[in-house]
Amino acid sequence: MSTLWHNLRLINQPDVDAIVSDGASIVWVGEQTAAPDCDQTVDLGNAWVTPGFIDCHTHVVFGGERAHEFDLRLQGKSYAEIAASGGGIASTMQATRQSDEQTLYKLARRRIEQLIADGVTTIEIKSGYGLDELSETKMLRVIRQLGEDLPVTILSTALLAHSLPPEYADDQAGYVHWVCQMLPKLHKEGLIDAVDAFCEHLAFSPEQVAQIFDCAGRLYLPVKLHAEQLSLQGGAQVAARFHALSADHLEYLDEAGVIAMAKAGTVAVLLPGAFYFLRETQYPPVNLLRRYQVPIAIASDCNPGTSPVLSLRLMMNMACTLFRLTPSEALAGVTTNAAKALGLQNTHGQIAPGFCADMIAWQVDDPAEICYWLGGQLPHQRIYQGELDASQGV
Amino acid sequence: MSTLWHNLRLINQPDVDAIVSDGASIVWVGEQTAAPDCDQTVDLGNAWVTPGFIDCHTHVVFGGERAHEFDLRLQGKSYAEIAASGGGIASTMQATRQSDEQTLYKLARRRIEQLIADGVTTIEIKSGYGLDELSETKMLRVIRQLGEDLPVTILSTALLAHSLPPEYADDQAGYVHWVCQMLPKLHKEGLIDAVDAFCEHLAFSPEQVAQIFDCAGRLYLPVKLHAEQLSLQGGAQVAARFHALSADHLEYLDEAGVIAMAKAGTVAVLLPGAFYFLRETQYPPVNLLRRYQVPIAIASDCNPGTSPVLSLRLMMNMACTLFRLTPSEALAGVTTNAAKALGLQNTHGQIAPGFCADMIAWQVDDPAEICYWLGGQLPHQRIYQGELDASQGV
Ligand SMILES: [Zn+2]
Ligand SMILES: [Zn+2]
Repeated sequence: MSTLWHNLRLINQPDVDAIVSDGASIVWVGEQTAAPDCDQTVDLGNAWVTPGFIDCHTHVVFGGERAHEFDLRLQGKSYAEIAASGGGIASTMQATRQSDEQTLYKLARRRIEQLIADGVTTIEIKSGYGLDELSETKMLRVIRQLGEDLPVTILSTALLAHSLPPEYADDQAGYVHWVCQMLPKLHKEGLIDAVDAFCEHLAFSPEQVAQIFDCAGRLYLPVKLHAEQLSLQGGAQVAARFHALSADHLEYLDEAGVIAMAKAGTVAVLLPGAFYFLRETQYPPVNLLRRYQVPIAIASDCNPGTSPVLSLRLMMNMACTLFRLTPSEALAGVTTNAAKALGLQNTHGQIAPGFCADMIAWQVDDPAEICYWLGGQLPHQRIYQGELDASQGV
Repeated sequence: MSTLWHNLRLINQPDVDAIVSDGASIVWVGEQTAAPDCDQTVDLGNAWVTPGFIDCHTHVVFGGERAHEFDLRLQGKSYAEIAASGGGIASTMQATRQSDEQTLYKLARRRIEQLIADGVTTIEIKSGYGLDELSETKMLRVIRQLGEDLPVTILSTALLAHSLPPEYADDQAGYVHWVCQMLPKLHKEGLIDAVDAFCEHLAFSPEQVAQIFDCAGRLYLPVKLHAEQLSLQGGAQVAARFHALSADHLEYLDEAGVIAMAKAGTVAVLLPGAFYFLRETQYPPVNLLRRYQVPIAIASDCNPGTSPVLSLRLMMNMACTLFRLTPSEALAGVTTNAAKALGLQNTHGQIAPGFCADMIAWQVDDPAEICYWLGGQLPHQRIYQGELDASQGV
């Protein structure tokens, strides 16, 4: 089934006003007068068409939420007090362990539907709130099930090295060893597409991350890393050494790390939601990333503790407003560069023959409006794998 | 037609699980077992019910948008360069003057529908992009028409003293004189509910504001003021002297101004969208406002130049995250205190007998979630003037 999408505009391609998809793929892009014959024709009303958005860093599967903590903090309670009363990541781990698959599925589905409604067609989701075999497997199964059921492409990342579970409270080395035992098992079950870790003084050291990445390498699994978020640990170098798809957060990244990432082709994933929510004042080194041509991606980091974000478009605004990215950089950050951060650069994130026909037709006058408006929804049509999503109105 | 709304929760009222409305009013609140007989019964699924949100400061009627300027600024152009090439408020004035009523109506309607979709039941809208008789009248007529057509209560504020139009470029006194001639005319046509002005070094002086407020007073029209946003001008004192309903923005407000507002009963309207969008670093004096018990309201300030905001709930998050309000203060900021900022404190913004039956039933576990989630929509039902809005699903 081929479709001619016409009466549309592409940014930086003034001559294009038509796209042809066949099945789930784009097969032709050009001027309508020269378009091949198609089974059907869809008029997109002079919309600006972008690739479907790719949210390349989320933790959208979790039990509970942490609104109560948000409230307590604003009433003046410290992080330490909240952690002492069972809050923080430990509370999400407990809630996730205690939730059955259906509950986790239902909660995550609602969150993903909101991301979808604001233009997302591909989502990466990490495990990492189970931290034991049963619960990590449960999370990863839920991720796979969501990918089967929803009109969105979902990639699954094993983030076992997210935090130290209470069972290993005094034995970080033992936990890392356990993680290295688990990865082959989970991979054998077909549950993971990549491996991630949290490199930070309060989580795992660069050496421990390297151990885990070694193990991922033996499984031919690509790696990514939470790096330099709260302090400079040298995580970016470890990521680069293992040719990581991405290093994420990066507020404290230094020039040496930027250079290492540039050489390795590692994408810098910036997460302005967490920056905003934590009232961070250390900015990621955007100018250095530009200078060394490290591709910059933007993601929601949707998670209950530091980034309860349900709109990737809002993150584009925050990337512009807070990090001074241009709207065009923000757009690349959720399309081409986000695809690269997931290893999907040959199939996703661009409108060109051979790429997946995931597209959003934005009914706006100026494409900068996608980044400009704060909150609400912009009128748009969503095309997923060559099909117009009936649920999205204009 | 009376309705029993039951299976619901009210914040800080653990004994209440039912509300009765008759027509557009709430007539009873209490325990369901003691409820009077009603024509119909609606089960709200154990939702947390809040008053409908009141957006007490918007400029939602305007021609054009300024996404292109947003883009230019991020590409490194200065405000001066943008203004020199016809940008800034002058561009919105031009676009508004050039738009016919239908165009202004259509654009504003789409924006208001987005605010409505995120919980708003009352909106204040200011004129102030026309700045001549024809165009200000046009804006005010559009505001009235929107109020007639949409399921939302709309109040109209004459903001003629918003900026100096080119016709009076060298004659501020002459423009203020003209404003004072216009107000009785516009009021006679039933177009205005309040009078506002912009007190700032680049707009109007406290003395000029006082002249305009004098004129409003002779018409028995309440006043409000854009005050102390970019510098300390003493606007808050002028507002207090005229018993203004509210003084708005207030980043540079000092203790003397806070005391004056407290004595006058003037509400402090905080506008975190503009603070965020302008990357302001001067915080409004929240602790002083608390100390002197000045009621704090929160609004979207929806406008194309400094706050292109389409979600009041997002402003609640920003009020918490950026200004450190508690979720409970943020909620009061869009209900009771926002009602007071519009002079509606006896009819709107509370769930109690005698108040308007504008309510939102939030399908969340913890009411702090209303402020906590960033972007997207929370599942809810909307009740406007005693009727369930069919367009809002869960
Ligand atoms: Zn993360
Ligand atoms: Zn304003």
